[in-house]
Amino acid sequence: MKTIQSDNYPIYFDNSIDELVKFVKEGHYSRFFLLTDENTAIHCLPVVKERFDGLDNFDIIEVNAGEESKNIDFCIGIWKMLIDFGADRKSLLINLGGGVISDMGGFVASTFKRGIDFVHVPTTLLSQVDASVGGKTGIDIDSIKNIIGTFTQPKAVFIAYDFLKTLPARQILSGTAEMLKHGLITDKAYWEKLKNSDLKTPSAELIHWSIEIKNKIVIDDPTEKGIRKALNFGHTVGHAVETNSLINDENPLTHGEAIAIGMICEAYLSHKKTGLSDGELKEIVEVITNLYPMYPLQEASHEALCTIMLKDKKNQNGQINCTLLTQIGQCKLDNICTDDELCESLTYYASL
Amino acid sequence: MKTIQSDNYPIYFDNSIDELVKFVKEGHYSRFFLLTDENTAIHCLPVVKERFDGLDNFDIIEVNAGEESKNIDFCIGIWKMLIDFGADRKSLLINLGGGVISDMGGFVASTFKRGIDFVHVPTTLLSQVDASVGGKTGIDIDSIKNIIGTFTQPKAVFIAYDFLKTLPARQILSGTAEMLKHGLITDKAYWEKLKNSDLKTPSAELIHWSIEIKNKIVIDDPTEKGIRKALNFGHTVGHAVETNSLINDENPLTHGEAIAIGMICEAYLSHKKTGLSDGELKEIVEVITNLYPMYPLQEASHEALCTIMLKDKKNQNGQINCTLLTQIGQCKLDNICTDDELCESLTYYASL
Repeated sequence: MKTIQSDNYPIYFDNSIDELVKFVKEGHYSRFFLLTDENTAIHCLPVVKERFDGLDNFDIIEVNAGEESKNIDFCIGIWKMLIDFGADRKSLLINLGGGVISDMGGFVASTFKRGIDFVHVPTTLLSQVDASVGGKTGIDIDSIKNIIGTFTQPKAVFIAYDFLKTLPARQILSGTAEMLKHGLITDKAYWEKLKNSDLKTPSAELIHWSIEIKNKIVIDDPTEKGIRKALNFGHTVGHAVETNSLINDENPLTHGEAIAIGMICEAYLSHKKTGLSDGELKEIVEVITNLYPMYPLQEASHEALCTIMLKDKKNQNGQINCTLLTQIGQCKLDNICTDDELCESLTYYASL
Repeated sequence: MKTIQSDNYPIYFDNSIDELVKFVKEGHYSRFFLLTDENTAIHCLPVVKERFDGLDNFDIIEVNAGEESKNIDFCIGIWKMLIDFGADRKSLLINLGGGVISDMGGFVASTFKRGIDFVHVPTTLLSQVDASVGGKTGIDIDSIKNIIGTFTQPKAVFIAYDFLKTLPARQILSGTAEMLKHGLITDKAYWEKLKNSDLKTPSAELIHWSIEIKNKIVIDDPTEKGIRKALNFGHTVGHAVETNSLINDENPLTHGEAIAIGMICEAYLSHKKTGLSDGELKEIVEVITNLYPMYPLQEASHEALCTIMLKDKKNQNGQINCTLLTQIGQCKLDNICTDDELCESLTYYASL
């Protein structure tokens, strides 16, 4: 499949691990570092490491898997390891993992010695279609997602479709939510295609298409002043639900599961506020509820969710700002939603 | 005096606190925050705060004074206060203080919600002629100076000459070292002027000239790929001496005192390696030793100093890289110096 050209960096699809090895060798880096988590260390690292056979100027840095690791303490640990391993400004960080690894690794690299090169090898569907493209880096503080970070582009992204085979079904579905979103906000044809596909094992073509959509948006607006806000559809409510679940649930929602809830709530708000038709609202709800289990959103949690939404970095002047749909494939940015409206959308979800 | 135009931002000299108030009011920020330390909170904050009389959309964040505060724990504290105070992407951070405040405040702002606006109001001579101009932000980890940071420009800099009157003589001299450096690396006329001035109370004109020199260099090379390395003269040895002193001395050297030592050592290396004449070496040593007290650089510390130099972020491939002089007012970048040469330069200093 065609290499996608992003904002000064390529996104490789075919023979991507070959391309990675070529990139590292031709980059003449003084040293390079593979950032992995305990899952990718088992399932993906051996495949990559074997290909670096013969090179001795690299080290492996492993962190715990999961969103709980995406914090400043892990960053400090990685920075210190880079110092101890002798990383200099001509070093490269390879982020081999899901969104936690690419977000946190990107932040670590973009601030180490005021910025060293980094690349992403996303190993989950979610990170392939979302985190690895667009130059957002970030970590959480006090469970507030991505509150600290930078806009810094990777030097390249290597999409290895084969790595998805190692993922449990629930992790695949976590990525599917972002693919559905890409269709909903800008591309009705893609939405139609997704509707008629097996979304439990999405094809490489569907992934390529999804990345093309996201890439087009982020190239037009790298620092989220305008059209990039389209990507926030489902994320105002979704992030709050995700944060709340991370704090309270023993087995927390995945990102995609939370965004699926957020998309239903914000589709409801779209119907109320920006003209999404009743028929399209029902269609969206049907597709999403067929894929994702329902989650109990007790009324008691609504106030807590609104408090979390207020702290979301998208908001200004204490107002909650949502991207909503006008129809499937089209969206409208910067819709101020009141607490009451947001609570009503949560109640709508709970009533399904 | 003339406002200097830097890389998309102005550096104000005259009526600079008036300009600051105007900037804040015309910027239509949702909220703004004054970052100060315990010294500027006493000597400078009241002057500034009084001028914001009538505005209620700001908060004050105070940290401990001194290089020891320039670490990630203080950053986390400031990030959390910004969250608690309701800072959003349309907020402004005003860094009111010396280099610690501008370096750390710049880093905090450049990473909070992936970057909010910040301005500097430097209150020490050192921060006026050095830290506030050039867009380097940074914090220390394990006493390694500025190892974590970004290249991010402030939106404006406000030089308030009057604040210098609150400084002890030793703090003034800490800034003088950078002024001397600006003359040595690119401007013989400025060096001559400095030599014949009272450097214990430098005039506003001398400060303006110094900032003009630094500004010209950083505009040409914002991310230190080339000519900006000129500013590192004296800093390879100087940073190591400073770090070592911070760790070991009860009353550590100021930045300028350490850089003064570094400039003597690197002037010696310049004489050995890049053709600086014996006469000019002696002239540099005389000017510097007349201003700064000698510091005991025991031979036992030389190895520790070289180890620190190796970790300096300027270096690559385990080699120590210095900017040296070819004559007063001209320099040569990227001179690899061996451990032996560096030790010899330390011995030269100790022999004075």
